[in-house]
Amino acid sequence: MGSTGGRRLNVNNINPHVRAAKYAVRGELAVKSEEYRAFIQEGHAGLPFDKVISANIGNPQQLDQKPITFFRQVLSLIENPILLQHEDVLLNQLGYKPDVLERAKWLLTQVGSVGAYSASNGVPAIRKSIADFLERRDGFPAKQSDIYLSAGASSGVNTLLHVICADDKSGILVPIPQYPLYTASLSLLNARCVPYLLDESKNWGTDLATIKSSYDAAVAAGTDVRAIVIINPGNPTGASLSGEDIRAVIEFARQHRLVILADEVYQTNVFVGEFISFKRALRELQRETPGAYDAVELASLHSVSKGMVGECGHRGGYFELVNFDPEVQAEIYKFVSIMLCSPVVGQCLVELMVHPPAPGEPSYELYRQEYDGIFESLRGRAAALHKAFAQMEGVECGEPQGSMYLFPTIALPEKAAEAARAEGRSPDEFYCMRLLEATGVCVVPGSGFGQKEGSLHFRTTFLAPGTEWVGSIVKFHKEFMDKYR
Amino acid sequence: MGSTGGRRLNVNNINPHVRAAKYAVRGELAVKSEEYRAFIQEGHAGLPFDKVISANIGNPQQLDQKPITFFRQVLSLIENPILLQHEDVLLNQLGYKPDVLERAKWLLTQVGSVGAYSASNGVPAIRKSIADFLERRDGFPAKQSDIYLSAGASSGVNTLLHVICADDKSGILVPIPQYPLYTASLSLLNARCVPYLLDESKNWGTDLATIKSSYDAAVAAGTDVRAIVIINPGNPTGASLSGEDIRAVIEFARQHRLVILADEVYQTNVFVGEFISFKRALRELQRETPGAYDAVELASLHSVSKGMVGECGHRGGYFELVNFDPEVQAEIYKFVSIMLCSPVVGQCLVELMVHPPAPGEPSYELYRQEYDGIFESLRGRAAALHKAFAQMEGVECGEPQGSMYLFPTIALPEKAAEAARAEGRSPDEFYCMRLLEATGVCVVPGSGFGQKEGSLHFRTTFLAPGTEWVGSIVKFHKEFMDKYR
Repeated sequence: MGSTGGRRLNVNNINPHVRAAKYAVRGELAVKSEEYRAFIQEGHAGLPFDKVISANIGNPQQLDQKPITFFRQVLSLIENPILLQHEDVLLNQLGYKPDVLERAKWLLTQVGSVGAYSASNGVPAIRKSIADFLERRDGFPAKQSDIYLSAGASSGVNTLLHVICADDKSGILVPIPQYPLYTASLSLLNARCVPYLLDESKNWGTDLATIKSSYDAAVAAGTDVRAIVIINPGNPTGASLSGEDIRAVIEFARQHRLVILADEVYQTNVFVGEFISFKRALRELQRETPGAYDAVELASLHSVSKGMVGECGHRGGYFELVNFDPEVQAEIYKFVSIMLCSPVVGQCLVELMVHPPAPGEPSYELYRQEYDGIFESLRGRAAALHKAFAQMEGVECGEPQGSMYLFPTIALPEKAAEAARAEGRSPDEFYCMRLLEATGVCVVPGSGFGQKEGSLHFRTTFLAPGTEWVGSIVKFHKEFMDKYR
Repeated sequence: MGSTGGRRLNVNNINPHVRAAKYAVRGELAVKSEEYRAFIQEGHAGLPFDKVISANIGNPQQLDQKPITFFRQVLSLIENPILLQHEDVLLNQLGYKPDVLERAKWLLTQVGSVGAYSASNGVPAIRKSIADFLERRDGFPAKQSDIYLSAGASSGVNTLLHVICADDKSGILVPIPQYPLYTASLSLLNARCVPYLLDESKNWGTDLATIKSSYDAAVAAGTDVRAIVIINPGNPTGASLSGEDIRAVIEFARQHRLVILADEVYQTNVFVGEFISFKRALRELQRETPGAYDAVELASLHSVSKGMVGECGHRGGYFELVNFDPEVQAEIYKFVSIMLCSPVVGQCLVELMVHPPAPGEPSYELYRQEYDGIFESLRGRAAALHKAFAQMEGVECGEPQGSMYLFPTIALPEKAAEAARAEGRSPDEFYCMRLLEATGVCVVPGSGFGQKEGSLHFRTTFLAPGTEWVGSIVKFHKEFMDKYR
């Protein structure tokens, strides 16, 4: 027997692009927080906290947000259609309303069984329902053949970047701070991330001069800039763009022939101002100046994970393509077909999200009440957290505007920066690690999203209920500042 | 306003690797069959058939295979946990058994809400349950930390190939015929497919001399061959490998330092012989010759889509890593974390699959009856189809051995080959297209899986119920042969 010479794979010979990818939302801090959680669950004591608060990721139902009753009732029936043979029991003993049964029957007619693969781009009737929703939302027609169901928005982003990036010169404009899915996916594809800074002084809005200078610098460096990512409302920043800002981005995209990737998964998480879709803005520009914008390609993404739905674990989402070349769409279809189809229950949940009970329907009142309750509760939690930040020395944070996050700036003493360097960490990482160790609260350092050189931040969700955890952050911060002052 | 110069993306400037990828299972024939299906559904007449039979893809529940009752009852409860407040109704009026309620409660304790993201590698308790199953199946220990839940096996393959392939010289040995997921994924990664032919004369078993000569030729061409894919039981061929063949492959992998990717999704679809897992065979070799096989890396994949479960639409699956470097596993964890987690309901279904009702438990009898019923029905359909092929001129097909497919050889007249060339198709594509047009039966040409130069095949599932469709194939074939004789 010859010598095997050890394992074939080691961290130095695997795909270097996988190794280069960074994904802080689920990085070292998240792993450590899960270890703490397991430690507590196993009944161990000795930590300075009795509960881990995962404020690192927008995962509402992990933090006790209740699912919408109508959605889950329908899903229970499509999982076990035999229940529909007991209408009396459902209606009179289990609190199901007639519209729940109707919707479940309709979905079953359309999907057959949720255990069967659907068409790779999604169940046709669900795509039609999404198109109808988009027409209602935007006031412009939408076609089911332009809609692609996906396993959450993440998988949609993966698809689109795979098709758009042709080689190692391809570049994509990505906002900084950003959700790290974009940089991680571009690393995997060995394509170029062309960062453009959002303007913290304008509540993290887009600044066209900044975008332009990033674009110019990238082109000068030989980058074939192909698309611009806009996250609206912003992640991690929560900002909603004005109609004017959106039109400016579209105009920029038109002039420079950039595909627009509009990540609009927080479209219902808006506390200040109003959500305006890129689709609507683009169609308005097309109407105002016929012919001028017809070649501006837009992909808009949405998801069941956010909003008042919060069904992350179901992995449902979709994207709509606007003004895309049919031959390119055929390649996108082929790409998604390799993974067969997105989860069919997740597809059904997308249908329920875009087509909830309407006024006058039996399930409407409860739906409205649950939806509004979640919205108000999120707004209240955001305000409480924001208020706490206002009391904290060296912490600055704009008014909560939307999404599920706050992204405060923190000014840390030089001694803290020194201690961080001694540990081989950036100061914001160091701060977040100490916060986790002291309080069990897991947040993500700003460096995980990108931040302006010399500035420090962290991102926290405002999903956790109660105020105790907020108090523990305030207390930790004071002690931290005192220690390193 | 400057001219936009048209759209940014066209089929000639998008990612060339996406364009190069081929995925025949959902290709032109499948798209055409869906058009026929829609045409019939809309009430149109005029086709020579009144029903489309999708025999192109292993999608049991689309072809009326019933889901296992226990599984779906549990899923209905975890989707709508409020139902658990009505135990009386569930037990006395809806036919749920106590073990259904218990399992649902246990799963809910473990996952929290199925609407929450889980750990990126899957819910810990579900990984533990899979490890227990693997121990029972193989007689060797398994660790939950080596198990990664995935959205079907496809997504697991995607993960593994992404990590293993480092650059455009990386090559993976892939059986021919193969499931086109492998070639398509390698195209996307711009890595090299190193095909090795299976031996049709030995019921599509592996032939080590063939593997060796493919390997040697690839190495001579500068390919860095890193892994070997084995599909066992085979897809599209249905063959189960003997223990001896499996050990020979492991020995080959050891000698040439190849990672083994064992696609074992058909492990319960075995009519002839016995399924032996690569894990068991590897551990046995490790026990017999201590030290010699400890560096042989194995990834074994499984899924809820096949077997008697057939829950394709739920996108559940997992892979187990054996003898992998922990640092490489950390990179795999990071990779899967970018897509957050696999569908949580799909994860629960994996748990149910590997941990079904046991003898003596209230749901056992029905479970057993349903499971055996599906197994026998599949065996019966396979036999009927095989018998029909035996009557068809120029068609040769080995005894059905397992999986969900038959893969007959077809000898077509020269005039048919000429007609195919005139249409720009390969003869098997031409045959399958005519079959679809005449009968509504959609199968996949052998060229979609790869076949020995000069030989022609098609792959058909034997999932469709009834015998009418089989009769229509026989009739079509006779007419086709007569026409082109």
